[in-house]
This record gives sequence, C-alpha cells and structure tokens, in this order.
Amino acid sequence: MSRIKLTVAYDGTNYCGWQRQPGGVVTVEGRLNEALSELTKENIEVIGASRTDSGVHAMGNIAVFDTQSRIPAEKFMYALNVRLPEDIRVMKSEQTEDDFHPRHCDCNKTYVYRIYNATVCPPTKRLYAHHEYVALDVEKMKEASNELVGEHNFEAFCSAGSQAKDTVRTIYSISVDKDVDEITIRVNGNGFLYNMVRIIAGTLIEVGKGRKTGEDIKMALETGQRNFAGPTAPARGLTLCEINYENNV
Amino acid sequence: MSRIKLTVAYDGTNYCGWQRQPGGVVTVEGRLNEALSELTKENIEVIGASRTDSGVHAMGNIAVFDTQSRIPAEKFMYALNVRLPEDIRVMKSEQTEDDFHPRHCDCNKTYVYRIYNATVCPPTKRLYAHHEYVALDVEKMKEASNELVGEHNFEAFCSAGSQAKDTVRTIYSISVDKDVDEITIRVNGNGFLYNMVRIIAGTLIEVGKGRKTGEDIKMALETGQRNFAGPTAPARGLTLCEINYENNV
Repeated sequence: MSRIKLTVAYDGTNYCGWQRQPGGVVTVEGRLNEALSELTKENIEVIGASRTDSGVHAMGNIAVFDTQSRIPAEKFMYALNVRLPEDIRVMKSEQTEDDFHPRHCDCNKTYVYRIYNATVCPPTKRLYAHHEYVALDVEKMKEASNELVGEHNFEAFCSAGSQAKDTVRTIYSISVDKDVDEITIRVNGNGFLYNMVRIIAGTLIEVGKGRKTGEDIKMALETGQRNFAGPTAPARGLTLCEINYENNV
Repeated sequence: MSRIKLTVAYDGTNYCGWQRQPGGVVTVEGRLNEALSELTKENIEVIGASRTDSGVHAMGNIAVFDTQSRIPAEKFMYALNVRLPEDIRVMKSEQTEDDFHPRHCDCNKTYVYRIYNATVCPPTKRLYAHHEYVALDVEKMKEASNELVGEHNFEAFCSAGSQAKDTVRTIYSISVDKDVDEITIRVNGNGFLYNMVRIIAGTLIEVGKGRKTGEDIKMALETGQRNFAGPTAPARGLTLCEINYENNV
C-alpha cells in the first residue's frame, strides 16, 4: 500500500466547496473521490488539507489517499486529469510518507484575495476577482495590513459557525499590491480560521474606503469582537495558492 | 437623434460569436440589441466593428446605434450594464459623429492570443488561454513573427469561407512574450481577415515546436498558399483588445 499526495487546482465557481456533502451536491472532493475510485477500482476517500468554501478557487490544495494500485505515483496526475472535469486539475502527484496527514502536519498556507477596482469589471475578470467600484486607497490598506502580521488572537476575524476553540494564529506576511485596476492581497500564515482571509479582505476594503483604520484592526485583535472587523468579502475573490509542509514531503 | 458609440467587453465562452443569427442562437450583438431596445423602447440594431467568432473574447469591441432617447450618452454604460448578463459589459458609452461607421472608418485593431504552455493548465486559466503542453521555443516564435510585420498579402492566413476580395493587410507590430507559463502574442494591424490572428497563432505555435520556420511564413506570404501556414488555433485563446479610430471620435 502507498500513500499518494495530490496537488489540486480548481475553479470553485461551479462547486459547493471542497468538502463532500450528502444529497448529490457537487463538490471538489466528491469529484476527486469518483475519479480515483473509477481509476483504481478501490473505494477511495481522499483527505484534504483545506476545506475551501463554496465558490473559492485553489491553485494548490493538497489531498492524500492510500491505494494498493500499482500505478506509479507521478502517473496519477495524468490518469486523473482525463477523468476529471476541466475545472479541476491535478497539478502534481507524488508518493508521500505513510503517516503524512495534510491537516495534522505543520504547514504554512498562502491565500490571495483579488479585487477588481474600477467602475466596470471586465467579463474575463469577473469569476476570479471581487468587483469593487469605489476607488480604494491602496496605501492605507498596505499600512493597516501590517497590524495583522504576527501571532494574534484572530477571533474577530472568524465567522460564526466555526468550531475552532483555539483562535490564535500567526500571519507571517501580508502584502497589498496594485497592478492597473487589480488589487491583490497576499497572506501567508500557519493556519486560518473559518472565513479569516475573506474577513481580512473585507476589513482592508473598508480601510481602503476610509471607513476603518489600522486602529480598528488593533481593536479587533485586542477585543476579539467581530464588529471591529469588516464584512466577509465574496468567495470569488479568494484563491488558496499554496500549502507548504516544512517537515514533510 | 444622436449616434452613440459603445465600447463592449465580453467573455465569449457562452456566445455563438458577435453577430446576430436567426433561430434563437445567443450572440453578443443579439443581447445588446435586446438590452438597448428594452431601455429605449426603440427597435435598436447596433452596428459592430468586429464580428468576433464563437468563443472569442473582447475587451474593446465597438458598437454604434442611433437613438431618439434623451438618456445622456455617458449614462448608457450604467443603464445597459444592469440589463446585460455579467459576461457582457459596456466599458464606455459616448456620443459620436453622425457619420461614424465602425467598419468603414480607418482604424487599427489590437488582438492578443494567449497560450498556457505547461504540462497542466490551471482551471482558472482555461477559459482565456489555449493550453499547449509541448514546450514552445519562444525565441524562435519571436524571430519568425517579424516576417509578418508590414504590408503583405495575407491570403494564406485566411480561412475558407472568407468573403474578402482584397487580402492585403498591414501588420504594424507583433510581439511574443512569456511570463512564467503564459505566452502572449500581441498583434496590431489595420485590418484582419477571417481567422487571421488564430492562423498566425497556430503558425507561431508550429514554429515554437520546431515544425515550421520563418521561411514557411515567408513562403505563405509570397505564395498565398494556406498549407505553408499552421492550423487555426482555438478560439478561447483570442481576445480583441482594442480598436483605435485615428480620425474619428
């Protein structure tokens, strides 16, 4: 038996998120399980690293599964891609340690939140960016975003319904950049609470509009009160870019 | 009565091209006519600058129409966008000369053809780039593309079914650039024959694979024979970026 690690990219537009659900709901995990079970003739259920929400995209989510199949690990990528819809792609497949678990092993994750900031959003951008027509002050967003870096209690940046008991996380870096009309917020950290990146994006958008400041972010982190942070920005702007396991293959 | 000029962007994925067709086929022109007629209560039929093919995208196609409406020219953008599907956007609306005709006035057009050149195409790129998994030699493509610049008889770069009698066109500039895995071919010229940019792209892809050279392009231009050029590259890689009218508003 061997444990295979998949790096999975998807366009989240047409999926009810990553996690398999009852009742015929189409999810990325569900599609992967179907393709793998068809390929190996085994009953495969992958373990995913990140249960992305409905509409959220990924360039590098991670999934593992165990198989008796003799298909070489690196060939799973090709064999799966012919069985998967075009909006899900396995970018890499490789053998991993038998005890590697994508949610229990130490890692850092990088998310990107894209904002299209112009009067009108060009149609070819609409699926992968949140359209914000009010002109945002990117310098203010950059400055305020520094307050989030470091180890903090991010309780205020977590949607109701989260099961997390420990709400302390570390953000290693955050950047806000503008290229013509596109603003990109890139966040790297050791873990993220439910909707945390979308609430960070929603808060920084409020800062860009002059409705909130770095002081509000400080207060949110100190008090843990959700109302100091901004609203949850829409799913389509969010992409899980990369999950990096420091000590594991 | 006033003549209004619209700058129109669209994601061509779900349209049977620009041009209105009989039989309930969904086209960009058809959708624009519907939205305009609903808005003005007039029976409006726009005149488009470029009849893009099924699946081709646009950032700046041009359409004009005449109206008795008192809606200020620059407000049509907002009024139309609330009536149009999200994959068609009016980027600009303005009044123009009464004799301005988007196909009869001198202009230059810029097209971009995008190639995603890697083993696997990430899902979020799939709709707006042609996936080519064979590694392309971009330097060879750049060099060969120079043969196309200038005034030439582009008969060999024109699909059967074209009604053009005069097949002489001028390409002012062409560039081939690579950014990580994305190759962008940008062509600016005074006019383009049916499928001309897609055949140029298909030819340069053959050059990038080492199957054709600049000499084949020279021969294609000299003889007008279609077989010296490469195949027609897929529609999804093509975007009509800009139409620039030199002497008209």
